[in-house]
Amino acid sequence: MTPTNPMSPMPTPQALTSTFAALQNDTFLRACLRQATPYTPLWLMRQAGRYLPEYRSTRAQAGSFMGLATNRDYATEVTLQPLERYPLDAAILFSDILTVPDAMGLGLSFAMGEGPRFAHPVRDEAAVAKLEVPDMDKLRYVFDAVGSIRSALQQPDGRSRVPLIGFSGSPWTLACYMVEGAGSDDYRLVKTMLYARPDLMHRILTVNADAVAAYLNAQIDAGAQAVMVFDSWGGVLADGAFQTFSLAYTARVLAQLKRHGPQGQIIPRIVFTKGGGLWLQEMATLDCEVLGLDWTVNLGAARKAVGGSTGAPGKALQGNIDPNVLFAPPDQIASEVARVLDSFGAPHQGAGVGPTHIFNLGHGISQYTPPEHVAALVDAVHAHSRAMRTEKTKP
Amino acid sequence: MTPTNPMSPMPTPQALTSTFAALQNDTFLRACLRQATPYTPLWLMRQAGRYLPEYRSTRAQAGSFMGLATNRDYATEVTLQPLERYPLDAAILFSDILTVPDAMGLGLSFAMGEGPRFAHPVRDEAAVAKLEVPDMDKLRYVFDAVGSIRSALQQPDGRSRVPLIGFSGSPWTLACYMVEGAGSDDYRLVKTMLYARPDLMHRILTVNADAVAAYLNAQIDAGAQAVMVFDSWGGVLADGAFQTFSLAYTARVLAQLKRHGPQGQIIPRIVFTKGGGLWLQEMATLDCEVLGLDWTVNLGAARKAVGGSTGAPGKALQGNIDPNVLFAPPDQIASEVARVLDSFGAPHQGAGVGPTHIFNLGHGISQYTPPEHVAALVDAVHAHSRAMRTEKTKP
Repeated sequence: MTPTNPMSPMPTPQALTSTFAALQNDTFLRACLRQATPYTPLWLMRQAGRYLPEYRSTRAQAGSFMGLATNRDYATEVTLQPLERYPLDAAILFSDILTVPDAMGLGLSFAMGEGPRFAHPVRDEAAVAKLEVPDMDKLRYVFDAVGSIRSALQQPDGRSRVPLIGFSGSPWTLACYMVEGAGSDDYRLVKTMLYARPDLMHRILTVNADAVAAYLNAQIDAGAQAVMVFDSWGGVLADGAFQTFSLAYTARVLAQLKRHGPQGQIIPRIVFTKGGGLWLQEMATLDCEVLGLDWTVNLGAARKAVGGSTGAPGKALQGNIDPNVLFAPPDQIASEVARVLDSFGAPHQGAGVGPTHIFNLGHGISQYTPPEHVAALVDAVHAHSRAMRTEKTKP
Repeated sequence: MTPTNPMSPMPTPQALTSTFAALQNDTFLRACLRQATPYTPLWLMRQAGRYLPEYRSTRAQAGSFMGLATNRDYATEVTLQPLERYPLDAAILFSDILTVPDAMGLGLSFAMGEGPRFAHPVRDEAAVAKLEVPDMDKLRYVFDAVGSIRSALQQPDGRSRVPLIGFSGSPWTLACYMVEGAGSDDYRLVKTMLYARPDLMHRILTVNADAVAAYLNAQIDAGAQAVMVFDSWGGVLADGAFQTFSLAYTARVLAQLKRHGPQGQIIPRIVFTKGGGLWLQEMATLDCEVLGLDWTVNLGAARKAVGGSTGAPGKALQGNIDPNVLFAPPDQIASEVARVLDSFGAPHQGAGVGPTHIFNLGHGISQYTPPEHVAALVDAVHAHSRAMRTEKTKP
């Protein structure tokens, strides 16, 4: 098995066949690899979460968010919950983007009703000097969860029901939390370090990038069938700073990632920078298969800019409906879904590669979302995207 | 005096001369009108504010933020405070973007250490039906402050030291606060209304646009020499929704604005959409002279896209350094200032119109900013931008 670099040669037909053969529903992986699918696949960022009553019940049993995330059985249970309700086309590991800095010893916790918090933020030269790539054994609970979820997704015919996506925060996004110690609305501390002591920031980001790469590779070894880098806070950076402090380190992660899983299957890589629409052309140079987009981006324009054309290289695009659409009644949800699908336009059909779209939200689903509205969204995506293809193939 | 529409004919040389003659320092207004200046003028969003000890002292006397904003003498005092410290090229009225909905009866208050809050948010059909353009007499305190500040800026030779900028929140930004009742991190309530009941949202925005236009016209009558629309939350909207619910109503404001002040002077209009970089081409169709940009935008690319060329129409550009740069030491501030100025490149010089730049932050200054760092920023902008012009004119 020769590793395939998607920036250079395309995967062989044989590699593709073996990748898809392991799945009952291969639409998500096909779309990642810019291959035709009978409808537009979808999954939802944060699909296993607080908007589901069954999630809240499991979390109550677990006692805390970290109790949930660090327990293989609970993590498996909540990862599968949305798939029991909705015909989603992919599962995503239930975990948190901040597990890596927690393993570095920063002490992650989640107070009830609040966001994440680090007991030991990284704010001075001494704290930066101490940082190192953590022993991946400290993240064993994540890799165990990946294996357990893969088993739970396995069907009687030996194939996986849908693929499982592994993920991590991006080096820059991890650094934001590591320096701020929590969420922020102005990123004052992390940007002060960036502008006043860029040397310290580069050291944090280098350690983070190498840690994220090791972490995602271990998820791939454990069975993750695609991986995603969440650059949730890339969009808060100034032009110039984004390229230097976010994009360059995402590239450093990608350069170290395995291209194949343990069975030789191809592992697509997704990069999502929230608020990164202005830098789409630069993101297109990343060595990844899929770019995630938030709702500010016009999908048609993005397809034209970076989606490639039939038979030519390009990125699959993932996104991008505003999660707040889910607060409207089902009819309006369906019409907004149609608007987003139509904005991308008819995806590639037939053999070979071409522009493809993976439907998703432009950000995580809100905890206040009515679960029945999610059903309306999922149905609308599948129905409208099938109809788009039928129309296209009418004589 | 014939009103001049900058979307069609240019102002006459005579109108320009009389506009500039009223000022000791006309660099800001010249740059707004895409005329040459000996250096790049600058002012800072929220330049009169909490980072200044003298502001905190006046606010303590006033007892509350609204006590400060509604008192003509206090408002005059704090508006002038930053000009006493720094050679800024414009003054901006000290006020709040939410005075208009307050005058609509929504009950604005600022709890200590918190953001604005409305006692009576607009969340249902009945509340929306009741909204109307407020009697401008309820905003008399603002127009009185404008007159008082103009007097305070007047020099012994009868000219104004620098021009005074009036401002308002945009219709959409006002609607965000009116529906949410306060700041928000997800805009769930206002977006729920937008997606579920677009009819109600359009009614709010229509009232807001007409109110904002009346408000800015009254500021112009009172002596404001330029006006700015702050679309602080336009960037949270999805592509498509931005054009329908923000841009269209900013256009509705601009269509109603006076083109000239009481002395016949030209009143430049600035529109700033935070997070609006992706829609720059569409914003360039607005009937205004200046577009404000946040730090995510590449100034060189923006100039190329909408700045026009020598002798041709285009927008002056305002912005866009990250306010967090002010937490770095003075040397780094100077080098970031140079980066921003160089990114725009040498502005238009000589007669006629051409691309111009007004230096500013990409968002309001942080209350934690060391005042002496602001001095370093102002000096760096003036020095580097003068040097850029000297180099350009070297044989």
